[in-house]
Amino acid sequence: MPVRTRRSRPRRAPLALLTAAALAAALPLTARGEGDTALDATAVHLRQQALTLAAQSQAYGIVHSVTVEVGPRLAGSPGDPAAVAWAVRTMKRLGLQNVHTEPVTVPHWERGIERGRILAPYPQPLHLTALGGSVATPDGGLTAEVVEAASLDALTALPDDAVRGKIVFLDQKMERTRDGHGYGTAVPIRGRGPALAAKKGAVAVVIRSVGTGTHRFPHTGGLHYEEGVPKIPAAALAIPDADVLAAELASARNDGAGPVRLHLELATRDLGEAPSANVVGEVRGREKPGEVVLLGAHLDSWDLGTGAIDDGAGCAIVLAAAHLLAELPEPPRRTVRVVLFANEEFGLSGARAYAEAHAGELADHVLGAESDLGADRIWRFGLKAGPEGLAAGERIAELLAPLGIEWVGDQGFGGSDLLPMRPAGVPAAALGQDASRYFDYHHTADDTVDKIDPEQMAQNVAAYAVVAWYAAEMPGTFGRAPSQGPGE
Amino acid sequence: MPVRTRRSRPRRAPLALLTAAALAAALPLTARGEGDTALDATAVHLRQQALTLAAQSQAYGIVHSVTVEVGPRLAGSPGDPAAVAWAVRTMKRLGLQNVHTEPVTVPHWERGIERGRILAPYPQPLHLTALGGSVATPDGGLTAEVVEAASLDALTALPDDAVRGKIVFLDQKMERTRDGHGYGTAVPIRGRGPALAAKKGAVAVVIRSVGTGTHRFPHTGGLHYEEGVPKIPAAALAIPDADVLAAELASARNDGAGPVRLHLELATRDLGEAPSANVVGEVRGREKPGEVVLLGAHLDSWDLGTGAIDDGAGCAIVLAAAHLLAELPEPPRRTVRVVLFANEEFGLSGARAYAEAHAGELADHVLGAESDLGADRIWRFGLKAGPEGLAAGERIAELLAPLGIEWVGDQGFGGSDLLPMRPAGVPAAALGQDASRYFDYHHTADDTVDKIDPEQMAQNVAAYAVVAWYAAEMPGTFGRAPSQGPGE
Repeated sequence: MPVRTRRSRPRRAPLALLTAAALAAALPLTARGEGDTALDATAVHLRQQALTLAAQSQAYGIVHSVTVEVGPRLAGSPGDPAAVAWAVRTMKRLGLQNVHTEPVTVPHWERGIERGRILAPYPQPLHLTALGGSVATPDGGLTAEVVEAASLDALTALPDDAVRGKIVFLDQKMERTRDGHGYGTAVPIRGRGPALAAKKGAVAVVIRSVGTGTHRFPHTGGLHYEEGVPKIPAAALAIPDADVLAAELASARNDGAGPVRLHLELATRDLGEAPSANVVGEVRGREKPGEVVLLGAHLDSWDLGTGAIDDGAGCAIVLAAAHLLAELPEPPRRTVRVVLFANEEFGLSGARAYAEAHAGELADHVLGAESDLGADRIWRFGLKAGPEGLAAGERIAELLAPLGIEWVGDQGFGGSDLLPMRPAGVPAAALGQDASRYFDYHHTADDTVDKIDPEQMAQNVAAYAVVAWYAAEMPGTFGRAPSQGPGE
Repeated sequence: MPVRTRRSRPRRAPLALLTAAALAAALPLTARGEGDTALDATAVHLRQQALTLAAQSQAYGIVHSVTVEVGPRLAGSPGDPAAVAWAVRTMKRLGLQNVHTEPVTVPHWERGIERGRILAPYPQPLHLTALGGSVATPDGGLTAEVVEAASLDALTALPDDAVRGKIVFLDQKMERTRDGHGYGTAVPIRGRGPALAAKKGAVAVVIRSVGTGTHRFPHTGGLHYEEGVPKIPAAALAIPDADVLAAELASARNDGAGPVRLHLELATRDLGEAPSANVVGEVRGREKPGEVVLLGAHLDSWDLGTGAIDDGAGCAIVLAAAHLLAELPEPPRRTVRVVLFANEEFGLSGARAYAEAHAGELADHVLGAESDLGADRIWRFGLKAGPEGLAAGERIAELLAPLGIEWVGDQGFGGSDLLPMRPAGVPAAALGQDASRYFDYHHTADDTVDKIDPEQMAQNVAAYAVVAWYAAEMPGTFGRAPSQGPGE
């Protein structure tokens, strides 16, 4: 159990780039006497444990295994039940208790063949992929002239006559940012672009991929059709291909090369619904097992990659953190529950099912935290909680500081799968990862396990273990979060 | 014409990382009095000109235009004549003389559909691509157990019984090196692996891509079937996919997960031969127009990418260098001839046709140099020439030194398309580029123009302009190179 530490060792400044070994050597003190209490001392012990090479290797082994033994696991696909089976056997292997599945109904959509070509002025094949949920083109594809718009506002400003019968090319660039806000700025072209273009009479939409990489991978992701608006096919172009299309459009404008015509063929299929499951495992609380600290990640992935950074990494991080707690001589007061949600990508089905099935229990969910932004280093910690929770948040922040994590108070995002629990006031810990390179790979075929840095992932495990332990063991609670409801 | 420079300016040390602007400022002197003669002074002028922003932008514009206006241009494909037309109009636009095409017959092979899946123990789709020239699988593909070998030697050592009826997985890693020698070490698994496996009774071959990138692109490239040995289908796996296959094989060995079975479908087609052309343009010599300095690159590309680094960059470098010479008030004594060769990738058809058509003229080819290793900085200069050529080589090396290029004497490789001229003793300049990242993109769909750094490419143009000028203007020649013949 708690590892007593001496207060006499010198304080070290938190450094973002410490190696695991250096970090272990720098531990375990802060100015306020970290390690003085059993609560703190165990947090420090967990933090150290997570950074050992053995733990680092174990956590990496978890995400490696889901990418090798399951790979792509889009909701409803053959990978979906394979992932559920993997999660059950992995939770049992890691010593979690009460391992079980909870039923979820998910949509079942298939990608099928997808092809695109510029036909004129300069013929070129294009690397593109259907947006998730896109309807198919007619058999054999469709051909139309391209009209470009640099943003949704620019599309709105175009006269309907300029759009009718055409393929709209939404050419908005995404900015690379550490906190990932560039995604939020650019992603509406993917979600809302198709419906907006359809309202103006477009026959299809292609977008510049919402991503930051320069490699030739299109980035898929969900779109939202609107009730009463025609559903038109929609695809994302790899960024080099968006560049080529933009260059041909520039030639058409500047050199009189003639209109740009594109052929698009998407053989997507909507196959209705399929059964899936959330997978749940616990470290049962020793005093208040009915009070729950929820560690979440999502088990599904897009179909193109092997779901390593999205969200095999999140699964591995929360599983490895829970495993460290399960290895303690005595469990914390409250239950730490790992939930690997079904179908985050295609409509939060698993999160909604969980919130519904556990509605009566959510008042006793003292904290939730979801890992769903890859495996790079966590650099900030925020808390969505009641006013009485902030003091505990500050204390946890001090325990996280040696990991190079800064306290940002009432900021950040707890994770999409926590949104359906927001109306019940479940507090959320926002452990913000460095998203600088996440959107190079996100929703592409290139989301493979080699993109994960085991050392950075171990820092994530350390942070989740500290937060989970502290929240499950501390005397008080975080209060209740303001229930703005889903849709933040 | 020649720009006279003062000898009194201080000498600056050559620096590999100088910016174009800094480099221009550091010019134009070396210890031996660079600029003393009209010969040297014009070389210095050309070197300076190539590094101006205007020239940098022009050279980049050339490679950009071939990737946008032509894109993929595999021998025999529709991109092949489009590339020839592009080259003719580009040479004319750049002010070259005697622009013409010379007929070449090329093989015509098509890739078609290609698919792979691991069926057991853990089903996974694989990203793979047919090796160039591979035969097709039977309709619907073939399925077999996988046997792995870490090298051709390891494959040779396997008993035939262990290989018969199986798919051989050649899992050799390529080393990243500045001079690109890692390619030479690994590439035999691609060229010779299929025939070796077939001799042992294999039904197909998959190789770990011969490349250094970790992105999910398979690297294609030619293979060589042997007379009298069955032709079996052969494909390259993207490196993350080779990792997954290796991991499943490890599971099969260590965890008893059972044999690894793979399904492979390649719908390649051998379509016989097609007409193509070398494209030739000149800066005609003012005194000895029959003596030729040949600047080469290849116009064809593989079908997967847009042929930016392989070899749009080479085309742009030699065209931009020739353009600088064409802009001089007076041309050099000898003719500088740019040859953009047809079909380097699929058997050197263009190079062979050139050597044959110009057999009577090769004795008057005083030097050849081909750019075919991307667009990154040149770091070394070698010369394959007669003994009397080395002094001139050393003098040229001094003119190249301010570009951060070191003289390596009788070393290096002049380019594949020069090989058929070797028996005639044509000297070759080897301007060795930094190949460190070239094989991340080489022969993949990711060979797109955004991978080119315009500033590094301009340094290449400067070097080619200096070499071409000096060789075309200097009083003597380089003698004749030892004619070891093709196949170095």
